[in-house]
Amino acid sequence: MNPLEKYKHLFQAELKLVDEKILSISQGKAALIGNLVSHMISSGGKRLRLIFVILSSKLCENKSDNHIKMAACVELLHTATLFHDDVVDKSKLRRGRKTANELWGNSASVLVGDFLLAQAFMIMAEVGNLEIIDVLSKTSSIITEGEVKQLMHKSDVTTSFEDYIDIIRGKTAELFSACCRSGAIISASEKIKKDALENFGRNLGIAFQITDDALDYIAQNQSLGKKNGDDFREGKATLPIIYAYINADKSEQEYLKKIFQENEEARDELEFAKVKTILNKYNSIEQTLKTADKYTKLAKENISIFGDSSEKEAILQILDFCVNRNF
Amino acid sequence: MNPLEKYKHLFQAELKLVDEKILSISQGKAALIGNLVSHMISSGGKRLRLIFVILSSKLCENKSDNHIKMAACVELLHTATLFHDDVVDKSKLRRGRKTANELWGNSASVLVGDFLLAQAFMIMAEVGNLEIIDVLSKTSSIITEGEVKQLMHKSDVTTSFEDYIDIIRGKTAELFSACCRSGAIISASEKIKKDALENFGRNLGIAFQITDDALDYIAQNQSLGKKNGDDFREGKATLPIIYAYINADKSEQEYLKKIFQENEEARDELEFAKVKTILNKYNSIEQTLKTADKYTKLAKENISIFGDSSEKEAILQILDFCVNRNF
Repeated sequence: MNPLEKYKHLFQAELKLVDEKILSISQGKAALIGNLVSHMISSGGKRLRLIFVILSSKLCENKSDNHIKMAACVELLHTATLFHDDVVDKSKLRRGRKTANELWGNSASVLVGDFLLAQAFMIMAEVGNLEIIDVLSKTSSIITEGEVKQLMHKSDVTTSFEDYIDIIRGKTAELFSACCRSGAIISASEKIKKDALENFGRNLGIAFQITDDALDYIAQNQSLGKKNGDDFREGKATLPIIYAYINADKSEQEYLKKIFQENEEARDELEFAKVKTILNKYNSIEQTLKTADKYTKLAKENISIFGDSSEKEAILQILDFCVNRNF
Repeated sequence: MNPLEKYKHLFQAELKLVDEKILSISQGKAALIGNLVSHMISSGGKRLRLIFVILSSKLCENKSDNHIKMAACVELLHTATLFHDDVVDKSKLRRGRKTANELWGNSASVLVGDFLLAQAFMIMAEVGNLEIIDVLSKTSSIITEGEVKQLMHKSDVTTSFEDYIDIIRGKTAELFSACCRSGAIISASEKIKKDALENFGRNLGIAFQITDDALDYIAQNQSLGKKNGDDFREGKATLPIIYAYINADKSEQEYLKKIFQENEEARDELEFAKVKTILNKYNSIEQTLKTADKYTKLAKENISIFGDSSEKEAILQILDFCVNRNF
């Protein structure tokens, strides 16, 4: 059974409160803000980041309602990033629906993204914990650094493994890390627990993104929105391609270099099939998933300091689910 | 004598420290971040917001070096806004130089804008004052609300005076207000001083933006960057136009409505001259400048609670300079 179903009694009530908190921020604001906020709430998604804030805080025996505020805060930060990313990537679809920039234009996405960022920091001020503000402002900065680095390396199939990890650590893993650490901070946990959850979140996030990058070449299930081959079409050199490039022969290397630097139109279905043939030849997807598995194991070790509980069980099973999904 | 020259001994040394602080944030970061940060520092500008943070903090007898951090913080917030605004407005020139989006593309401007916002909040966490974080996150939110509202009313020459004030309060005045209040907060001043400076900053900001909107139709001096007629070309219905529309006859009203809703290409020099004729006919520029003057007077009243000092003198003269400038 899908652990997000199995353990939903641990976070379902909280998610509802988080949604209420998020919807409340657009009350009395310009209609355009309300439109984009509703669009974001109704488009769903797996809401993993929120769930990790809630489960981490419960694992640390949080007593206040700050976990609701923190989960809302993290969701706002994340959504702001998505709004801005979709402008940067010129994306038209996300989770199977038109993106905000496609529906309301780039200007609205940039400005409402900024609004959500500001609201996230307003909530942090409300929570009134300087450590939280320190962690989340740094996280925010690292996310953008990851995005900028991705922009600079975008079509570069010769990107090193280290640079790749650095990029996904920034664009994905740091927020998971901050989510998990936040749960410990608002529960006033000792440093060892904060660090454990921080590292857990980071390794989980890296494993999650690597899996995502592999799935872009192999996923069959299109029902959850992202189109198979999106990274390829956008010319993003992700880990499967980086591994393939390292193992490929000269002519295949030249081909990979060339096809990723072409205009988007050049990367059609035919070229996608050709690239997948190279990935298969060198088992690049298996190699990629093995790397994800390494980070999954690290994540599990990170939280071994916590005793058994249903929250820990849920966290571990959701981790496994994230890296073994086929969507 | 220009008061920014006359009183520069009150803030010059501090501005240098602020620049060092700002330059330090791009150290060790991706080259693209460094490029945009240097571009921003070297493009100068009047740096009024920074100067008001420093003068307000001195007026409140600040003893720490937090005014340097706060000035850097405010400059980062402001620059992030400019980067994003230029993407939203598709601007090509600012202060006589190519904009960041023109030089490095929209993606870089969006992401580095986000980076600067995150860095601003990191500095606030460093200052460690929750009231500052509360004020500046709210300010950040109100700025974006102003921008969103401007986007929604952009070409609407029937925008009411109240909506116009609401827009410029958001996009311009709240940050001046936060600058001035910050100076009092970091100096641990009593509430009456904080409120006085907050209101002063807001009224100054409104007067400043109204003057700016008038100058767009009359400024002769092009040396400081912004091109005369920018607002008209972009189709922004600002106060001179709003006043003209109220006083105009039916056919002029129809013409104004139509020309502001056309594509940008339609608003050429010929049409600019026609619109200026209507503004002249109804003394709309004079009426606009009179309104600015009303807010200038309010600003002066706001800080009447402070005793005489060279800082207060500087603040008052810079205020007058801002609303009597011809650039």
